[in-house]
Amino acid sequence: MEKKSKYNVAVMGATGAVGQEMLLILEQRDFPLDRLVLLASKRSAGSTMKFKGRDLLVEELKEDSFKDIDIVLASAGGAVSKHFAPFAVKAGAVVVDNTSAYRMDPKVPLVVPEINPADIQKHQGIIANPNCSTIIMLVPIHPIHKINHIKRIIVSTYQAASGAGAKAMQELETQSRDVLAGKKARKEVFPHQIAFNLFSHNSAVKEDGYNEEELKMIKETKKIFHDEKIAVTVTSVRVPVFRAHTEAIYLELTNKPDLDKIRKALMNAVGVRIVDDAGKNYFPMPLEATGGDDVLVGRLRLDLSNPHGLWLFVSGDQLRKGAALNAVQIAEILCGRSAS
Amino acid sequence: MEKKSKYNVAVMGATGAVGQEMLLILEQRDFPLDRLVLLASKRSAGSTMKFKGRDLLVEELKEDSFKDIDIVLASAGGAVSKHFAPFAVKAGAVVVDNTSAYRMDPKVPLVVPEINPADIQKHQGIIANPNCSTIIMLVPIHPIHKINHIKRIIVSTYQAASGAGAKAMQELETQSRDVLAGKKARKEVFPHQIAFNLFSHNSAVKEDGYNEEELKMIKETKKIFHDEKIAVTVTSVRVPVFRAHTEAIYLELTNKPDLDKIRKALMNAVGVRIVDDAGKNYFPMPLEATGGDDVLVGRLRLDLSNPHGLWLFVSGDQLRKGAALNAVQIAEILCGRSAS
Repeated sequence: MEKKSKYNVAVMGATGAVGQEMLLILEQRDFPLDRLVLLASKRSAGSTMKFKGRDLLVEELKEDSFKDIDIVLASAGGAVSKHFAPFAVKAGAVVVDNTSAYRMDPKVPLVVPEINPADIQKHQGIIANPNCSTIIMLVPIHPIHKINHIKRIIVSTYQAASGAGAKAMQELETQSRDVLAGKKARKEVFPHQIAFNLFSHNSAVKEDGYNEEELKMIKETKKIFHDEKIAVTVTSVRVPVFRAHTEAIYLELTNKPDLDKIRKALMNAVGVRIVDDAGKNYFPMPLEATGGDDVLVGRLRLDLSNPHGLWLFVSGDQLRKGAALNAVQIAEILCGRSAS
Repeated sequence: MEKKSKYNVAVMGATGAVGQEMLLILEQRDFPLDRLVLLASKRSAGSTMKFKGRDLLVEELKEDSFKDIDIVLASAGGAVSKHFAPFAVKAGAVVVDNTSAYRMDPKVPLVVPEINPADIQKHQGIIANPNCSTIIMLVPIHPIHKINHIKRIIVSTYQAASGAGAKAMQELETQSRDVLAGKKARKEVFPHQIAFNLFSHNSAVKEDGYNEEELKMIKETKKIFHDEKIAVTVTSVRVPVFRAHTEAIYLELTNKPDLDKIRKALMNAVGVRIVDDAGKNYFPMPLEATGGDDVLVGRLRLDLSNPHGLWLFVSGDQLRKGAALNAVQIAEILCGRSAS
């Protein structure tokens, strides 16, 4: 992309949970903006959103919305990206797509800036932002992978409502109020009650028994790590938490894990913060990951029955590092900022 | 134990969450009772509890509380069992102990009636009831273990507040109300906020990095299965759910798993109910396990990257099968009823 001092950025799906977070992050990180264009469906067009104290008008997303736009941050759903991204690319923009539409397309780089920033430069107009659970898993295990090759990942997730959007977060709140008031929980977004309950992830289950969320984590890990051989298996679960995903990750490493070396690697890693105080029983929690940029990692311990086994327990903000922050970081690298 | 038509039963810790559930289960299963004695700490003594429509007085637990008692169902904490169980045994009673006090004592059988009922007959006055998470894990995997020996278990838990007692369930409710009202969550029972949050299990963490809950699951599995070689590793997590524990269980089996055979084995197993409808995205949930006797099991699927790997997702009522029901079932076998 042509280097400038300031860029025209369009946020596609600006009014959604991730879109809102993108605005916040562009502001917090003082992104070099010339013009910021907010795009959304016809339903949301005409409303305003705050940015740096000013009210910005939300415009209707159209095929000709991308004139003079340098970067599109897209987060309006897979079908919307599928349709509109080619128009943005034709108009000369680079699309950082936060949906699953292009992630496994071999022509599209799939990027976590802390892991494979060099892949950004291979783009042909579209760069894909990985699935939230994938990002939150890979950021803390990549520093380990670099010093002791990971052969197998067995992971169980504890995923927040936010992954299903702003309405799902609202549903958790409304249902919780209703249940506490002795009323029946009404289901609109999720297929099952989320308040004071949990359930296997609500994405479609495929023939092999895996749901789409699990398959994303399996496939995307191989693509981001450039490692088709890494074995990954997942159970994805939705829990009554608002907006940070937690994961219990079991790794099988090539060599016997050295906990001191692994701790040191994590301490020096960007995007990771160790929270691992056994004496105080203080480890990563979604409440503390919420609103932060780092993926919290703790409960580092060996498998007492497998000399190559290692556990970790991680938590990261689904809307920030799991989505909006990762996309903005990619955009920053496009603009020539170094990865951070 | 001497066979009678009716037995004198004492419930130690009758007013606690598990004690209350024991009363309910003794009533529901029409346990052959002559006298039912409710024992609790001095603080709770003098109150009354309902049983079959009658008010029963709660008596203070004392060293001489066990005269003419046949069976003691103990659930008043490890220290209380450690002190009082020997007095009960001396008075001629058999103690079914729901605490961790005697579980790993080689002279004390550790029993899940669906798995190792024969061990009951080896008792020397005390029979231990396993940890709730252990029971809920082992009931659904034992039918698999019988047809295809389990070599390794890697499990992540989603444990309800009830495991920490009635006050912890109250804390989940109170904190949830406070958070929804925009107030700060007050912590009394748990070290961290449980409402809309989750955290690594609140039991003490040992030098090897495992907490007591995890070590219980590891050690108790070996004892109940009579298999010192089975490899077990665990991450235990507390989630904002009231009273059923859920577990994502990964098994490594001796032979390639045959899903049809495994499903058949589970269908024929006592204490297990298959909930596994991929089309409807309908699998075990704590809300549906609550109040029931069966451990729900679903998400049966192979590991796409390991021909010997198998996942299951299970949920069981922590207060019933995880505690009170299992203890009453042991008592029933002591009384000559067959395991069911």
